[in-house]
Amino acid sequence: MNASGSNSLKLPLRGIVPPMATPLLDRDTLDRAGLERLLEHILAGGVHGLFILGTTGEGPSLSYRLRRELIDQVCRQVAGRVPVLVGITDTAYVESLSVARHAAEAGVAAVVLAPPYYMPEGQPELREYLSHLVPELPLPLYLYNMPPLTKVPFALDTVEWAMEQGGIVGMKDSSGDMGYFHAVLQRLPRRPDWSLLIGPEEMMVESVLLGGYGGVNGGANIFPRLYVRTYEAAAAGDLARAREGHRRILRVSGGLYRIGKHPSTIIKGIKCALACLGVCDDFMAEPFSRFRAPERERIESALQDLEGIEDLK
Amino acid sequence: MNASGSNSLKLPLRGIVPPMATPLLDRDTLDRAGLERLLEHILAGGVHGLFILGTTGEGPSLSYRLRRELIDQVCRQVAGRVPVLVGITDTAYVESLSVARHAAEAGVAAVVLAPPYYMPEGQPELREYLSHLVPELPLPLYLYNMPPLTKVPFALDTVEWAMEQGGIVGMKDSSGDMGYFHAVLQRLPRRPDWSLLIGPEEMMVESVLLGGYGGVNGGANIFPRLYVRTYEAAAAGDLARAREGHRRILRVSGGLYRIGKHPSTIIKGIKCALACLGVCDDFMAEPFSRFRAPERERIESALQDLEGIEDLK
Amino acid sequence: MNASGSNSLKLPLRGIVPPMATPLLDRDTLDRAGLERLLEHILAGGVHGLFILGTTGEGPSLSYRLRRELIDQVCRQVAGRVPVLVGITDTAYVESLSVARHAAEAGVAAVVLAPPYYMPEGQPELREYLSHLVPELPLPLYLYNMPPLTKVPFALDTVEWAMEQGGIVGMKDSSGDMGYFHAVLQRLPRRPDWSLLIGPEEMMVESVLLGGYGGVNGGANIFPRLYVRTYEAAAAGDLARAREGHRRILRVSGGLYRIGKHPSTIIKGIKCALACLGVCDDFMAEPFSRFRAPERERIESALQDLEGIEDLK
Amino acid sequence: MNASGSNSLKLPLRGIVPPMATPLLDRDTLDRAGLERLLEHILAGGVHGLFILGTTGEGPSLSYRLRRELIDQVCRQVAGRVPVLVGITDTAYVESLSVARHAAEAGVAAVVLAPPYYMPEGQPELREYLSHLVPELPLPLYLYNMPPLTKVPFALDTVEWAMEQGGIVGMKDSSGDMGYFHAVLQRLPRRPDWSLLIGPEEMMVESVLLGGYGGVNGGANIFPRLYVRTYEAAAAGDLARAREGHRRILRVSGGLYRIGKHPSTIIKGIKCALACLGVCDDFMAEPFSRFRAPERERIESALQDLEGIEDLK
Repeated sequence: MNASGSNSLKLPLRGIVPPMATPLLDRDTLDRAGLERLLEHILAGGVHGLFILGTTGEGPSLSYRLRRELIDQVCRQVAGRVPVLVGITDTAYVESLSVARHAAEAGVAAVVLAPPYYMPEGQPELREYLSHLVPELPLPLYLYNMPPLTKVPFALDTVEWAMEQGGIVGMKDSSGDMGYFHAVLQRLPRRPDWSLLIGPEEMMVESVLLGGYGGVNGGANIFPRLYVRTYEAAAAGDLARAREGHRRILRVSGGLYRIGKHPSTIIKGIKCALACLGVCDDFMAEPFSRFRAPERERIESALQDLEGIEDLK
Repeated sequence: MNASGSNSLKLPLRGIVPPMATPLLDRDTLDRAGLERLLEHILAGGVHGLFILGTTGEGPSLSYRLRRELIDQVCRQVAGRVPVLVGITDTAYVESLSVARHAAEAGVAAVVLAPPYYMPEGQPELREYLSHLVPELPLPLYLYNMPPLTKVPFALDTVEWAMEQGGIVGMKDSSGDMGYFHAVLQRLPRRPDWSLLIGPEEMMVESVLLGGYGGVNGGANIFPRLYVRTYEAAAAGDLARAREGHRRILRVSGGLYRIGKHPSTIIKGIKCALACLGVCDDFMAEPFSRFRAPERERIESALQDLEGIEDLK
Repeated sequence: MNASGSNSLKLPLRGIVPPMATPLLDRDTLDRAGLERLLEHILAGGVHGLFILGTTGEGPSLSYRLRRELIDQVCRQVAGRVPVLVGITDTAYVESLSVARHAAEAGVAAVVLAPPYYMPEGQPELREYLSHLVPELPLPLYLYNMPPLTKVPFALDTVEWAMEQGGIVGMKDSSGDMGYFHAVLQRLPRRPDWSLLIGPEEMMVESVLLGGYGGVNGGANIFPRLYVRTYEAAAAGDLARAREGHRRILRVSGGLYRIGKHPSTIIKGIKCALACLGVCDDFMAEPFSRFRAPERERIESALQDLEGIEDLK
Repeated sequence: MNASGSNSLKLPLRGIVPPMATPLLDRDTLDRAGLERLLEHILAGGVHGLFILGTTGEGPSLSYRLRRELIDQVCRQVAGRVPVLVGITDTAYVESLSVARHAAEAGVAAVVLAPPYYMPEGQPELREYLSHLVPELPLPLYLYNMPPLTKVPFALDTVEWAMEQGGIVGMKDSSGDMGYFHAVLQRLPRRPDWSLLIGPEEMMVESVLLGGYGGVNGGANIFPRLYVRTYEAAAAGDLARAREGHRRILRVSGGLYRIGKHPSTIIKGIKCALACLGVCDDFMAEPFSRFRAPERERIESALQDLEGIEDLK
């Protein structure tokens, strides 16, 4: 499919697939050196894949030109070491497809799609939309369930319908609703190639203990090894170690994600922590902006409290 | 500013400014003949402006290429007969600005912007976003308050702040919350160049009777003269005629907008009615689709009931 | 039906029916002297009815014993001068019926009922509930549409169903959704005994200008004459005077209802203003409490700004 | 404290505390024989406590007279075999306190309170309310977090405040938000007498695996032993058995709770299943009603599929 053959994906996908933050120097300028460092920092943690242009990656805030530049740059540097997944969520079908085609040419392994999120579509409309789009996609698709931001969920009967379609190979569930998560998981035996990954890191351990496939967790930008080892403990049924990892992840979340008042505080916290650690710039594209000095001081102090947190025995 | 000088705008803007439906043959193909007919149909009704690429115009569902083509085509045909307003709402700052620049070159009179609508920003973030964007815009801006779709409103204190900024000249309020509408209206004396237009046509008459500046009402795609005359009656304080116009607008709304079950039913109803009347194609870009035969029959029957509705004495 | 014959109700009910605040000395003690003054204050304004034990009356916060005492006291003092309406909204059918029976014996004219508001019922469940309860009620019933507090609205098809039932004679709509209000109003010609009254005072004038029957407006506790005269102007089609009344009502609302941060701020503002004016105590039953000194000072200052506001020519 | 001494409570409370359905013959008539059978059925499963007059028990739909009768009857029959908890949630402070006092005299062990749920109070108002009520309560209190029904949650800072008060000994969390649950759990080391129990049974296993204290799960009305054994497996860290129990609980939930369309379908399913099993009548107090024949047939068929589900090895 492409020169480097880097887009191979072993199904079902399992493990930690960090939703990468996008290092920026300005609203339309990649922090290329920072991106290089961030990628190596994450890959050194032993992650099982990489998800770019998602919510944490500020995908919807970036120009299409920058999205393409980022895809190219990431694929070139990752060079097949792990599968790269790319968010193509858009309100415009044509633009989703266009990004997906660019991604396929760059060597991406799969694309990730949340429901169009301006005017809320009904579930029959959502299914018809997928039935048009999925056959045109050049890459396998992961559904991205994110109702707090898209207003529209992938309802359970839509998920059942999706399991009967080719082209779709799993879901990232960021609903935070474990009842929904378990209900989807119950249906997975129909599709051995599907995986179900969880977004909120606070529920990663329980999801994996009860059959989940892994996590797309923002904190793995900062402490990738902690998330990988915790996932491995949970997947192996090592309850004591999984609990300890869970407690540590809660400390990350409690320390870094509640500094500001608006929902963007999580991304701000992650980017600020990466900047404090010298990994990359913390510029954020509008309508958001990086933490100012008082919040940054709180992040710095939280990072000191978290020192050594990756050393999960 | 441009060859035809067509982008002049007399402030404050008053009257009926239809949010034009976008005639399509396919998801990325304008129905150019239909667009020509629709434009002349609307202009013949005596409207005071035209708003393209809004919610009714399926703006967020269209490719950027098509948005530009539509802007060019509309400006060429309108040729300064009424001011053209263009929606530039986007989650990506760079793309909003890019559409605004194209619009200015094409001869558009003003741009219209709702809050970025993926990750909900707080009001301070929204104000900072506007403080970056507005000075870069080549055209005057109308705020577009549409919290059911954007999740984020322009809160009252943000509107007060906006009234102190240059570059912003009014608001289209589609919140449906008349308490909010009146509270904004109360603050307008500070800015004689601002206007406050209302989205939901069911509240157009009362808004104008109590000081509002006009309506951006979807039904004016179909029956432009009804909305213009009703507006004029309300603006002139002709209560009997305004009431009669109001009752007729409710009949349009009751007959055409509640056929389907999902929020898109209003746009579907408008496009289907335009197709039944031979004005233009009713193709809808994904994730939506035109009404099927059963719904179309109900629209046809409603149109028969509405015959002669424009003849408001 | 009762000794004083005071429960007669001329249908359809029209005019200003203030939702009376409940003067309290303590959470289970009526401020009887304050109640006496408040009643005469309101009645002196020329109101067309009185609604007790509604939202503004803190109905749901009061013990059943106190609710009965209040009903008795109010009926005795009003003595048939205006019809008294009593809120019987409850999550428990048996308690609603019990209050309604007590009210009938005391000489009340009608009861007012919002949907049970703990576990949200579906519309078919709501209709079945009404079909059980209404025939057992000893008094005519007004529906009370208040979805922000009950979660469940009276959906349009439920209203249409209700119009075919005996025993129901109208609705108080506090949804704040004028599209809904107009849709209900459109259906009223079927039932000449029904009236449709509006809750939010900011929309009273427009509702009456377009066919509404009056208002159940909290501010009429404080300035009853202003609301009565404004209603009369709107009902008579005196647009200039109605607009002036509307502007004054917005000043009341803007001055008194946005002092605090929580939804209870409206009731707190009304009770505090009544206390400042020497009418009654402003104690509030839990989970609420009266304004403290800083908020009270703002109310006092707002009252000075509002001096003379009732003198609508 | 009372004749039978039955109200002793060993802190912290751990295990399965079923939220008992209330067997009714009519809206104000207990099914006393059914109640007797239901109680023995539940107790035979080895449960660790009993919670009456909660959401599943239709507490808010019942008259105060019936609530008192139920409390008396349950206490008499349980006779100290397990601690009995009683829901006292109410919009009226006086009525909450009155039920609590009756409960204390009857030998109840603790009371359970969700935030007043008509007009939504702010968190400072909620804390002030608790600071008045809790000292007056004759029994220890469990907070009941149920934002989908009360609109108001116990926010994290309110929980932290509550941990500093006497009189409160834990929380039942029915929010369904595991991020919230873990955040509360993180704070429990401050109070060794507190417990944190979870409402939604689909999340019981994961909550206990990660440190939770047990479940208040509706399905334990029908299959008490399944929930008890599953809890014990999770509490003992027996991951294989806990997973099997979890899968079985999901089968109960999937089979019985999604038959109808409205939120009440869960309670309807539980009561209908109990009726099919000959335990008690399935009458439901308004505004709800029992399943009709078609839904009942689906419950019967689901019960056949679930046969033997309690035999968790």
